[in-house]
Amino acid sequence: MKIIVEENYAQMSRVAANLLLGKMYQNKRVNLAITAGSTPVKMYEYLIEDVKNKTYLDNVHYYNFDEIPYKKKSGYGVTMNNLNKLFFEPAAINPDQIHPLDETNYKTQDLRIEQDGGLDLILLGIGADGHYCGNLPGTTTFEDLTSYVGEDATEDMQEILLSEVGGDENERPNFYVTMGPKSVMQAKEIVLFATGKKKAKIIKQAFFGPVTNNVPASLLQVHPNLTIILDKEAASEIL
Amino acid sequence: MKIIVEENYAQMSRVAANLLLGKMYQNKRVNLAITAGSTPVKMYEYLIEDVKNKTYLDNVHYYNFDEIPYKKKSGYGVTMNNLNKLFFEPAAINPDQIHPLDETNYKTQDLRIEQDGGLDLILLGIGADGHYCGNLPGTTTFEDLTSYVGEDATEDMQEILLSEVGGDENERPNFYVTMGPKSVMQAKEIVLFATGKKKAKIIKQAFFGPVTNNVPASLLQVHPNLTIILDKEAASEIL
Amino acid sequence: MKIIVEENYAQMSRVAANLLLGKMYQNKRVNLAITAGSTPVKMYEYLIEDVKNKTYLDNVHYYNFDEIPYKKKSGYGVTMNNLNKLFFEPAAINPDQIHPLDETNYKTQDLRIEQDGGLDLILLGIGADGHYCGNLPGTTTFEDLTSYVGEDATEDMQEILLSEVGGDENERPNFYVTMGPKSVMQAKEIVLFATGKKKAKIIKQAFFGPVTNNVPASLLQVHPNLTIILDKEAASEIL
Amino acid sequence: MKIIVEENYAQMSRVAANLLLGKMYQNKRVNLAITAGSTPVKMYEYLIEDVKNKTYLDNVHYYNFDEIPYKKKSGYGVTMNNLNKLFFEPAAINPDQIHPLDETNYKTQDLRIEQDGGLDLILLGIGADGHYCGNLPGTTTFEDLTSYVGEDATEDMQEILLSEVGGDENERPNFYVTMGPKSVMQAKEIVLFATGKKKAKIIKQAFFGPVTNNVPASLLQVHPNLTIILDKEAASEIL
Repeated sequence: MKIIVEENYAQMSRVAANLLLGKMYQNKRVNLAITAGSTPVKMYEYLIEDVKNKTYLDNVHYYNFDEIPYKKKSGYGVTMNNLNKLFFEPAAINPDQIHPLDETNYKTQDLRIEQDGGLDLILLGIGADGHYCGNLPGTTTFEDLTSYVGEDATEDMQEILLSEVGGDENERPNFYVTMGPKSVMQAKEIVLFATGKKKAKIIKQAFFGPVTNNVPASLLQVHPNLTIILDKEAASEIL
Repeated sequence: MKIIVEENYAQMSRVAANLLLGKMYQNKRVNLAITAGSTPVKMYEYLIEDVKNKTYLDNVHYYNFDEIPYKKKSGYGVTMNNLNKLFFEPAAINPDQIHPLDETNYKTQDLRIEQDGGLDLILLGIGADGHYCGNLPGTTTFEDLTSYVGEDATEDMQEILLSEVGGDENERPNFYVTMGPKSVMQAKEIVLFATGKKKAKIIKQAFFGPVTNNVPASLLQVHPNLTIILDKEAASEIL
Repeated sequence: MKIIVEENYAQMSRVAANLLLGKMYQNKRVNLAITAGSTPVKMYEYLIEDVKNKTYLDNVHYYNFDEIPYKKKSGYGVTMNNLNKLFFEPAAINPDQIHPLDETNYKTQDLRIEQDGGLDLILLGIGADGHYCGNLPGTTTFEDLTSYVGEDATEDMQEILLSEVGGDENERPNFYVTMGPKSVMQAKEIVLFATGKKKAKIIKQAFFGPVTNNVPASLLQVHPNLTIILDKEAASEIL
Repeated sequence: MKIIVEENYAQMSRVAANLLLGKMYQNKRVNLAITAGSTPVKMYEYLIEDVKNKTYLDNVHYYNFDEIPYKKKSGYGVTMNNLNKLFFEPAAINPDQIHPLDETNYKTQDLRIEQDGGLDLILLGIGADGHYCGNLPGTTTFEDLTSYVGEDATEDMQEILLSEVGGDENERPNFYVTMGPKSVMQAKEIVLFATGKKKAKIIKQAFFGPVTNNVPASLLQVHPNLTIILDKEAASEIL
């Protein structure tokens, strides 16, 4: 476990971008699973600059690791829409290099990734509850591969799903899909990043506390190649 | 997770020996943590033949991953004595290539291994209770690094320690030391092997059941580079 | 460059088999380019025992690195016929795992191997003239990828081709194809083995002398991951 | 061989910096051999920003690959002085992480690097004559490890040495030391970068022409993990 603490959000984002770029410049297929959400916004801004229209990076393949479908709207779900907006579109990534996970193919996600040569790196955020990908406390357990999580998985799941689709009841799905803890641990390298005071407590709990399904991200601390990138605020309880 | 099922104990042992030998022939330092006990007896017979007096294998370094000290007898404890008898002495391994873990240095074991470049491979057996190394149910938990386990750790620990020193009350120690789950998971590759009907149930439980501290070896199923070598009997519940 | 010197041909062959087997036991596709000829006969005997009917080795893919077509006979050429007889047939290798190079596809050999993920290991013999694969002095030069070599490439090429088809003038081809020096050097690991007094001089010349196209194998000494396995006779001029 | 062509010198420098940074963020010792001269000036500017005072990069070790001693001045020679000015000092690199090669230790350079675990990456520039490190045409040959090159090695060597010390006859040395072609090829990864029209011809010659001692850098094209980073002008003859 390597812990990198940076001054602020922008510098944390620059390190994350550098780390991903360093993986990309290879003369072989490189498979990256990347995260949507708010933490990576700045990192994608940096990445776009270094990735857009670079044909020499056509060896890089991208995977999303969870998806929340819209109930009615056709096309991509919440995660892929977000990734498109944050990165794939502004960086003009060729669709051939994007491998969407969704409700139609989640059962073969682990096999497909294995056949593609495995993930070289998976980039994760972390929630204040210790979740990463769609592995929320009470949904999946450590031995799970890519999974279907129904609206009844936890007490507040319907509420969570509603919030994920922007509060639009018509679009609230009754499930989502996610790579499970065991899927994520198969990656050759795991990078997790976090920003802000609100993440300080869970960072301590997940990486310096017990490995327990109650704190899903706590499993990651036993991966042989884990890097954690934090700004000072997110690191404030471990320094 | 790659599962190799072989016809019988001898062939399972040959595959384990081949796999270790394949790691050894490199033009760089290779760090192996290896297991004592009864499962590896035949494998060491094969290895000795291919390793003895081979100066071209002086790049290989060996680590024990647990130690049970004798109460009075000075010198090596139970594990290193066993490894000496099974392998180091008959294979005439140079002492410079052997890095004993014991009660005097267990607190720095993880750091020393990291400074040596990390373990390239750790070879493990498994107990019918799901233990590996000295990680018995109730002793260590997943987040533990190399640990001291006292005679009060579990109800039957005094009995276990007595049995480990051959039933000699004068030599029964009141503790042992072991690399913990988190230490083991840092290895670049984990190989676990098992033989016989008596291991069939735990193999199923540990590698196809939940990841839980009640079955310590169950954690290994989430390592990104795990190989399990079984004979048909040990595999009989998973085929 | 790691040099392994063994007592005799049988032990040299065992080490080569061990080294290849060690590569095979992985939970991912493994690409091996292997050699025909007389040097590997014993090694294949060992390998067959450990590979035959092992479905857990269906991740291993095999490539030949040169081919001498028969002029009239249809089907495989000299190299693939030899590999079939020595290894593929007795080891019952699934045809899906065999990727023949021949005169119809040699122009895409390098691209195909790259798309398959590259060679994990290439096993080479060496001729008394310093050739490996079909890279004889005067045929290819260091910068060549997979190449066509015509009967006029060197003065004695017609004679060599005649000898390769057993002296049958009706079957003497007027060319052969071979992976070139640059193709071979792209492999992640190169293993070269040699047996007998008659190879002692070229071993010294190729690996302890100048890197020159006059001694094609001399280029291999600059590969970052080269292992040379010799019996005592083949090593007699370098000890 | 992966070729990256960027718009201009600044962007080429940014890619080189990204690639090096990507190597650095690891939880293990990382050994980099880096180049002095004019090509890397901008790259070091970028690197300094991301490396200065970052204690989490204390796992990175730096090596120079050649040295031209001053005749009289004591202390570092031309290369280390230049590296100090361009990078080590402004980036505040800890001296423990810097491993100077000089005339007193060049004979053990290859062994020391091997014992340190080998070079993870070597970053090279290229001269219009095809030289890299101190491997000028007529000085070393492909099979050479780290070498001493005397003032009589080539006709114009005295002049070259004079120019290297800024034309000061009192300081002109009568030799320099350099890692040889075989030393450089042992690195796990080679990155070569070039800028400007004046390098366009040698880029074509070295990487798309014959492998010959007359063009020392031509050997690099057979390394299994070579990346070439160019701006458009340097790439103008190969596009």
